[in-house]
This record gives sequence, C-alpha cells and structure tokens, in this order.
Amino acid sequence: MTYCVGLRLNTGLVFMSDTRTNAGVDNFSVTRKMFTWDVPGERVITVMTAGNLATTQALISLLDERSKIVSERNPTILEQPTMFQVARIIGETLREVIADSGSEGQKAASKFKASVILGGQIKGGKPTVFLIYPEGNFIEVTDDNPFFQIGETKYGKPILVRAYDPDMSFEDAVKLLLVSFDSTIKANLSVGLPLDLQTYTADSFEVSDKPRIEADDPYYQTVSNSWGEALRNALTQLPSYQGD
Amino acid sequence: MTYCVGLRLNTGLVFMSDTRTNAGVDNFSVTRKMFTWDVPGERVITVMTAGNLATTQALISLLDERSKIVSERNPTILEQPTMFQVARIIGETLREVIADSGSEGQKAASKFKASVILGGQIKGGKPTVFLIYPEGNFIEVTDDNPFFQIGETKYGKPILVRAYDPDMSFEDAVKLLLVSFDSTIKANLSVGLPLDLQTYTADSFEVSDKPRIEADDPYYQTVSNSWGEALRNALTQLPSYQGD
Repeated sequence: MTYCVGLRLNTGLVFMSDTRTNAGVDNFSVTRKMFTWDVPGERVITVMTAGNLATTQALISLLDERSKIVSERNPTILEQPTMFQVARIIGETLREVIADSGSEGQKAASKFKASVILGGQIKGGKPTVFLIYPEGNFIEVTDDNPFFQIGETKYGKPILVRAYDPDMSFEDAVKLLLVSFDSTIKANLSVGLPLDLQTYTADSFEVSDKPRIEADDPYYQTVSNSWGEALRNALTQLPSYQGD
Repeated sequence: MTYCVGLRLNTGLVFMSDTRTNAGVDNFSVTRKMFTWDVPGERVITVMTAGNLATTQALISLLDERSKIVSERNPTILEQPTMFQVARIIGETLREVIADSGSEGQKAASKFKASVILGGQIKGGKPTVFLIYPEGNFIEVTDDNPFFQIGETKYGKPILVRAYDPDMSFEDAVKLLLVSFDSTIKANLSVGLPLDLQTYTADSFEVSDKPRIEADDPYYQTVSNSWGEALRNALTQLPSYQGD
C-alpha cells in the first residue's frame, strides 16, 4: 500500500509520504512517492502517488518528459496558467497510462489503478491541493475538507480529523502528520519509513527543504515513543465511566 | 459494516458492539450484535457478530434453538465442557450457515460471510476470548494479542494498541473502548450508535449489567466532545519539529 497526506494551512501547504512499495509481503523495497517541479518565483508543483507502481512511475516519467521537451506536442504542467489546469493534465495523463496498461492482455484495469495528490501554487492563484482519481477526475480542498489522504488512510485519519487546525504552524503540522503516520506504520506492514516531507510557504514560489525522515531520526523516535504515553495521559484527563 | 471489540483484562472481559446494519447508505437500521447465554454459577458465553445479517441472525437462532431443545441431536454450547469446545461448535455452525446460503443460486460465498467474537468463562477454565473466522476456524487471545476487533477495525485500532493495559479497570477499559468507537463512528457511516456494552468479572459466572449507550448518553457525549481537546493537549506535550 502507501500512505500520503497533503494538507492546506493558512500559511501554506504540507506534504508527507511514506516510501514502502510491495508486491506481497516477501517483496518490498523503498521508493519515492513525492515529486516536485518548480519554476522559481513563478510556480511550485508537488505530486504524491499511491497505487500500482508501474502506473505511477509511468505517470511521473510522462509528466517529467513533457516538462522538459519543449517541442513535445503534449501540454506540460510547467506552462499551465492555473493549478486547476495542471490537475486536468495530470488526470488525463493518469487515465491514459491506466488505459494503455489495460488495453491488451490483462483485463483487470483495477489492477493498474493509482491515485494522486497534487498540491502547489502558480503565480496569480492561491496555494491549493487536489485529489486525482484513477478515472482522471479530481476534487479540490475546501475549508470543510482541508486535507487529502491516499493509500492506507484509515488508521491515521482520526488524529487528523481531531487535531488539524488551519492556523497551526508548519512545525505543529509536521508533528501531527508524524503521529498520523506513526499510527499507520504501527498497524500496517505495507506502510513504512523513511518518510518524505515537504513544506511550501504560501506566495514563496520556491521549494523549501525536502527532508527525508529516516527510521533512526531522533525527532521521529521521540514522537513515536512519547505518543503512547501522551495518549494515555489524554485518556486519564477524561472522566471515568461510572456504569449504571 | 460493524464494529465490535472483545478484550481480556486481568479482572475479566469487556465487550462492546455498535448496532448499525445497512444495505447501501439508503437502507440502514439498528440491530443488536451482542448476544449472551448463561448458566448462573457455571458459565457465561457472549457472542458478537459482524458480516452478512442473514448469516449472523441464522447463526444466533441456531445456537439459541439448540441451547433450548434438549432432545435436539445437535450439540449445545450450554453443555460443552470448555470455551474451546464452544468455539468449535460456533465455528462449525457458522460454516454450516454460510455453506447453506451459498449452495444454491448465488455462488459468491463471500457475500454470506460473517465473523464472530466469542468470549466468556466456563467453570474450571479461565475467562477468554476467541475470534472465529467465516471458515469456522478460530484463534484465541494471548498476552501478546489480548483483544480482537471485527468489522470496521482500522480507525479505532491505534488507540487500543497504544493505551490498552491488562491491569486497567473496567471503568478505564470502557472509556478506552468509547474513544475507539467514537473515532470509528466519526470516520465511517457504516458504524453507528447506540452501542451495546457488557463487562464480565472473572470467576463471577454471572452476567452483570448490559447497558445500551444511546447517542444522547451524557457520558458518551462527554468522551466524544472532550477527546478532541485531550488529543490536542497530548500533541502539545510532544516537542515541536525543528526542521533541519
């Protein structure tokens, strides 16, 4: 599986993705699922992928190729005027890759499926995040629905729902995401460290640091080890059940 | 879907189940998923079910009928010497119901599947909990794996994994389960209130109270409303991310 989250804050965007890919439990490895394109001062586009690895790699390769070859007749995400148009291109490219894989031989198109979280900002627009479905259509974050998850989303959702706040700082958002990822990693072997992190400051139009959080990262270790105790303390704060 | 948890404490057993059943989002109702048989002073047997409602109702009806009709040639769970033998009978009965449903017409046996959590104590044995699969085989709780969930298990698992302690009191266990259920209910429409609760004190061989926790239950409301704040406080306890 996979676990990726993209969330919108008032101060910008935060993206986190795991790196485990597996075909059965006896065949797993590390692969990057977060990709960034930028034109400094003008646009930053971040994509995270979940699903069939051949599909997602083909998608990223096509997006990348088309952003480099100017004479290529296909449209490039680096020339679209809005994030909406970028989402449209990525959706079309994703659908194209899935259709290609499914057109001959293997008929189970669902096996080639993949989902994408797209986030970023283009000059003239606001920072935003999209969730793109295998069918190529997509939805955008709103105030009511300010983050998207793809992959193994269930274990890590309750803490996001409860603790997300659009006013939170990048530092607090990263802490929240690490707790959400740690809950998932502890429950499901198909999600694993290291984690890729990227924060984007609104209106900066540049890629800040993109740290990779390894399993032995001291901060991750602290969060992972302290969260159990913090949760137990939180439970203690609640009044006890008294029965009838 | 459904959400049921059965857990073993040093002082006894705690069971909680939701009551929502649905066939599509436009057809849902309340149904009991927790059933108890007892012979006071000798045995208490509790069963919780998840899966196809026709299957689970047939299972419960068969178990109940056979426990009442003494002349019935089929074995009854009220006469088995151990919880292991009770689990074997329930597993066989479950497999029988699923096989009956699948034998004619509809061939997708998976559509008739159901899972069961069985817990209780029979004089001469210890209190224990089993998870019974649709295939009729089963596993028992151990010190390493002291609780079972069935149904929509993912949202509510992280808090159980982190905060369960075999030494906890019934009151604290109920509080923990309410948080786990609340996280699930907030995330998934197929799990809903009211909740059925049962605690069993080790070596009591009697059914204590079996309260039903309604949506307007003041204690549930307190837990549900306070947990968000308690979680945010727990996050605040953790050190902040500092970046590179």
